[in-house]
Amino acid sequence: MQRIPFAEIQATLAGVLLKLGFSSARAQHCAQLFTQTTCDGVYSHGVARFPRFVAMIHNGNVHVETEPTLVTHFGAVERWNGNRGPGNLNAWASMDRAIALAREHGIGFVALADTNHWMRGGTYGWQAADAGMIGICWTNTLPNVPAWGGVEPCLGNNPLVIAVPRAAGHVVLDMAMSQFSYGALESYSRRGQMLPVDGGFNAAGDLTRDPAAILASNRALPIGYWKGSGLSTVLDMIAAMTSLGIATHQLGSDPLQEAGTSQVFFAIHPASLGPADQSARIVDEIVASLHRSPAAQPDAPIRYPGERTLQIRAENLVLGIPVDPDLWQQILAL
Amino acid sequence: MQRIPFAEIQATLAGVLLKLGFSSARAQHCAQLFTQTTCDGVYSHGVARFPRFVAMIHNGNVHVETEPTLVTHFGAVERWNGNRGPGNLNAWASMDRAIALAREHGIGFVALADTNHWMRGGTYGWQAADAGMIGICWTNTLPNVPAWGGVEPCLGNNPLVIAVPRAAGHVVLDMAMSQFSYGALESYSRRGQMLPVDGGFNAAGDLTRDPAAILASNRALPIGYWKGSGLSTVLDMIAAMTSLGIATHQLGSDPLQEAGTSQVFFAIHPASLGPADQSARIVDEIVASLHRSPAAQPDAPIRYPGERTLQIRAENLVLGIPVDPDLWQQILAL
Repeated sequence: MQRIPFAEIQATLAGVLLKLGFSSARAQHCAQLFTQTTCDGVYSHGVARFPRFVAMIHNGNVHVETEPTLVTHFGAVERWNGNRGPGNLNAWASMDRAIALAREHGIGFVALADTNHWMRGGTYGWQAADAGMIGICWTNTLPNVPAWGGVEPCLGNNPLVIAVPRAAGHVVLDMAMSQFSYGALESYSRRGQMLPVDGGFNAAGDLTRDPAAILASNRALPIGYWKGSGLSTVLDMIAAMTSLGIATHQLGSDPLQEAGTSQVFFAIHPASLGPADQSARIVDEIVASLHRSPAAQPDAPIRYPGERTLQIRAENLVLGIPVDPDLWQQILAL
Repeated sequence: MQRIPFAEIQATLAGVLLKLGFSSARAQHCAQLFTQTTCDGVYSHGVARFPRFVAMIHNGNVHVETEPTLVTHFGAVERWNGNRGPGNLNAWASMDRAIALAREHGIGFVALADTNHWMRGGTYGWQAADAGMIGICWTNTLPNVPAWGGVEPCLGNNPLVIAVPRAAGHVVLDMAMSQFSYGALESYSRRGQMLPVDGGFNAAGDLTRDPAAILASNRALPIGYWKGSGLSTVLDMIAAMTSLGIATHQLGSDPLQEAGTSQVFFAIHPASLGPADQSARIVDEIVASLHRSPAAQPDAPIRYPGERTLQIRAENLVLGIPVDPDLWQQILAL
């Protein structure tokens, strides 16, 4: 890994985006979101995704200069069309609207149709929490997990993000509905390692920790078996039915053609429900209770979701952000 | 199992509640919610819970005639105090308020502090869906699952309910954050059966399907390992911080003392976002796509969450509701 300063990565990505027709402000923002994701240690969904993002601009699925448009609104809810614009900018704009609605109504809800891959979902959780809001959002995806009892991928891994604002570091859960992503399965398989827990089925239909067997059967496991299968289903339903957009079953299996997805964004303003110092204390006490609880391995204390982010972010800002040299060469050539 | 008509069960339970000081209308409603749960096939959380519910009236944790009171409201959000009233009536009243707020604002959110066990969470999902709403609600609970990396129960299993209205049968997910409840572990253990998938850790700290080993170690597994651990954490945070109520770590391990829990209720009115026939078609098409997807066992097609409920309900209304004879004698003696 080479370590590259945040500003250099952002400027490089923005330069590519400018050449592709982005306006200056949108290029900077889009590049910043990619860079921040890698800076925060979510290496799978930041700079590493940039080449695919560019490929989807070239293949016509991502429209660089379209912005989301408001279709309908009622009270604290709005429905937007993403017009196949850049997924991260669309999602950012949508959470921004949910936050504005929450300031006005205590809660805000935005449904977004016809958008594109939002890259790292946690980004919009951090966005809400930075605004002092509880943020909840999810997206549907192409089918990549069999439903419980099924043998072919028919559910999306539909990442779900839930963020809680906290002065000492937001709590941000960002989890897909599959136990392991295909990227993770490939990475274990390349290293010749078994998964730490069952991750899917082998060709005989038995649960297995063997990543190669799961890649061969194409039967990854939803979290909690039947439970994650159900959760993925209802998340897809709500995203598609409120945005009047595309559902998972309408998407094919090619990630380069995963366009037009549906997303929802909730923001809740805790300060509209009571004194902010009181709700903050409650969250801090829950964190303290987790830290007090005995760990199975004394050197691995229990962590809350997102706990390591601020530390990784700080390190990467000081030392430079780790980027794979081949990836970086690939980006410099775009 | 003996089969008892719905009306007879409801009248019997209502009779007990009247003796305990419930007003007539509240006794009927509370008894109806218990009976409907068993009628719907959720045998663990209906009539079977009634003796414990009565015990918690006797031990002073459930106050029969207190109703929830509005503490604060702002736009589409309200905060209520449950005043330790009957958990199912409190939860019903709260989802009712969320529905009313959603009619007015497109979305409604109610946070409820100081309430009691809501029995079957799915009840309030069905309630929202019957009103044409998407319903989302969850409760925190006493600590009964270790966090990922921990050895002592410090998280609640915090059931999460997500309901989608559908003319041909609502889609209702009702799932706890533990892979198996302690009731289920005990039931497998009594029958001398292994669990179908890993359900927790044995004394050596290894994942196991042996229910007796998990009961001995007290280390049940959250769904999706680290993922359900994180999800349980943020659900507890949001319930406690918005209601300004009790968090899981403040509750002990005795179910008879599990009083004062925190809950949240969301309702979203799909009709406020677009034509109802369009959103209904989207949901029906997702259901159809699941039914089309090939099943691992041809006689066990893929089901959506709650799919069997209407059929079980209809059967039990015709044939009578199955109740364990010993349980029924116990209830008749109350």
